[in-house]
Amino acid sequence: MENSAQSLSEKECVPCKSGGSPLPDSSIKELLCRLNNGWAVENGRLHKTYRFKNFAQALAFTNKVGALAEQQQHHPDIFLSWGKVIIELYTHKIQGLHENDFILAAKLDTIDISNSNPAQEPV
Amino acid sequence: MENSAQSLSEKECVPCKSGGSPLPDSSIKELLCRLNNGWAVENGRLHKTYRFKNFAQALAFTNKVGALAEQQQHHPDIFLSWGKVIIELYTHKIQGLHENDFILAAKLDTIDISNSNPAQEPV
Repeated sequence: MENSAQSLSEKECVPCKSGGSPLPDSSIKELLCRLNNGWAVENGRLHKTYRFKNFAQALAFTNKVGALAEQQQHHPDIFLSWGKVIIELYTHKIQGLHENDFILAAKLDTIDISNSNPAQEPV
Repeated sequence: MENSAQSLSEKECVPCKSGGSPLPDSSIKELLCRLNNGWAVENGRLHKTYRFKNFAQALAFTNKVGALAEQQQHHPDIFLSWGKVIIELYTHKIQGLHENDFILAAKLDTIDISNSNPAQEPV
């Protein structure tokens, strides 16, 4: 499981064309199993909630997410509030989930937040 | 109108105690009229959508909002997506709107986003 999650995080998001097909449920299930804990698919969107000690650390995490999103040219919706960041992934061009969403999800889990949240489970 | 919005932005958020009363509707209406265009109260929350040319500029704005929030020790919910930031203000301690929410709203409208969004109406 650990190896699969790692290999997903090592892939790169690819440019995605309009009109393509979203992933079928079977692929979504398989990719979800390759991610670390915390990710879920709901209403066709892949989401995870990260918790922090305060607002500043949640904002710092948001900036790291932003840097990865820009690097991959794939941008999540980010809900930032005091001590909490919710990430929501979805590929608007295909109106559904693409492998890119799972690749970015795996990459986001490589962000080191060990200093920001002492209650974080070891990854 | 311009002067009233300005004077609201020059006030400072004050520490807020649990158990206080939220603003009555009449005060909410009056304070809303003193804000610039774009703010609305819906479901008991004060919100505004800011639009940008791309993700990076929306993230840059989010950081400026974060700096103001930390300075005032009053933190909005921030919904950041590609080219868009939605700000939502609410005072959890009193389960409603406080003058702090309107003060922070007025302050957020003083952030210079003229370089980020050429379609922005002059403030």
